Amino acid sequence: MAEVKLFRTWSSPFALRIVWALKLKDVPYDTIFEDLTNKSSSLLQYNPVHKKIPVLVHNGKSVAESLVILEYIEETWKQYPLLPQDPHDRATARFWAKFSDEKVLASMLEAFTSEGKEQEEAIVKAKQNLKYLEEELKGNRFFGGDRIGYADVALGWLAHYEGVFEEVCSIKLIEEDEFPLLSEWIRTFADAPIIKENWPPKDKLVTKFQGYREANVLKKIGT
Amino acid sequence: MAEVKLFRTWSSPFALRIVWALKLKDVPYDTIFEDLTNKSSSLLQYNPVHKKIPVLVHNGKSVAESLVILEYIEETWKQYPLLPQDPHDRATARFWAKFSDEKVLASMLEAFTSEGKEQEEAIVKAKQNLKYLEEELKGNRFFGGDRIGYADVALGWLAHYEGVFEEVCSIKLIEEDEFPLLSEWIRTFADAPIIKENWPPKDKLVTKFQGYREANVLKKIGT
Repeated sequence: MAEVKLFRTWSSPFALRIVWALKLKDVPYDTIFEDLTNKSSSLLQYNPVHKKIPVLVHNGKSVAESLVILEYIEETWKQYPLLPQDPHDRATARFWAKFSDEKVLASMLEAFTSEGKEQEEAIVKAKQNLKYLEEELKGNRFFGGDRIGYADVALGWLAHYEGVFEEVCSIKLIEEDEFPLLSEWIRTFADAPIIKENWPPKDKLVTKFQGYREANVLKKIGT
Repeated sequence: MAEVKLFRTWSSPFALRIVWALKLKDVPYDTIFEDLTNKSSSLLQYNPVHKKIPVLVHNGKSVAESLVILEYIEETWKQYPLLPQDPHDRATARFWAKFSDEKVLASMLEAFTSEGKEQEEAIVKAKQNLKYLEEELKGNRFFGGDRIGYADVALGWLAHYEGVFEEVCSIKLIEEDEFPLLSEWIRTFADAPIIKENWPPKDKLVTKFQGYREANVLKKIGT
């Protein structure tokens, strides 16, 4: 049995954070791919509260919640530090990681699962959130400075899933002229070693999220 | 000018986390009480993204988001460590802090701002979440072990605001026979030095949250 195991799905953006962190730090691990419609007894045992992936198991002990797992990885394997040294810079990285999930992802998901006027409003909100990221990138190649760090790993899903959003909804959220720095970050991050080798296939994601959008839109209009 | 400033309101449970952490570590600071219906230009300058309290300003640099501020305090002032040493124990503390906001608080707020069948369902959900906390306390006086730690500080609001919930809604969520360990934790935590000296007056909270519940219930039923 390997010392480190990662429970994930092929499509989860949260699981990708853990894949990238482990690979950036060169930590060997085994992968268990879960089918969330038929969860394994191991997943239920290792994450009894949320019953979700990703879950990291290290020496038989489990850690859940992707941002909590990132902190665990950072504290356990010191090579390639994801967080900077200075406490204020560390707080800034954690701030944007939280912003990723609570604001950027939430507003994009709202736009993704709605239509018409509701979708228009959600897009305005999503773009407001993306504007803050654009601001934050001023003078920096990555959110973490000149190399990929904690905030980049947390926000990294954006670099691939924004394109999936575009294909499924026929709406481009991040236009080059409106978000030049974020567009550049997306290209640089998405194409970086380790990052680019681990993206799930885009066409497969598009197919999956077409189904997800359809189910949610239908549910909302009550048919 | 003091080195450390805390922007807060008198009633915010998130701000209390920062008050407790600074006082447990014996860090002197100045308090700026904000009126959220008329935010100061300093607050808008120090937290331009969320425009919310709490905000900690240390040597002129601001940190926002209460759990991010807690990590900053922990890394900046080493006395009275809130997080344990072991990475897995640290992950556990962070897990329950996140659970506090995303599950316990969210489900209690849902129950707090609803009526009838919707409220009944929200109460079932809130109690399921509280059951996990009851489980976690088995064999421990505090979530952090035998002294107040990071998870206690994060979950601490529960020890006071659950009573406010009870008074406003006439519903007791945490009954002694159903939640003996959590009830005991509430008593011990609420009465601990530093914690008990910093609770906002309960009658004033009840008055405020009566207004909050009324506004939200009325909005939901569209009157």
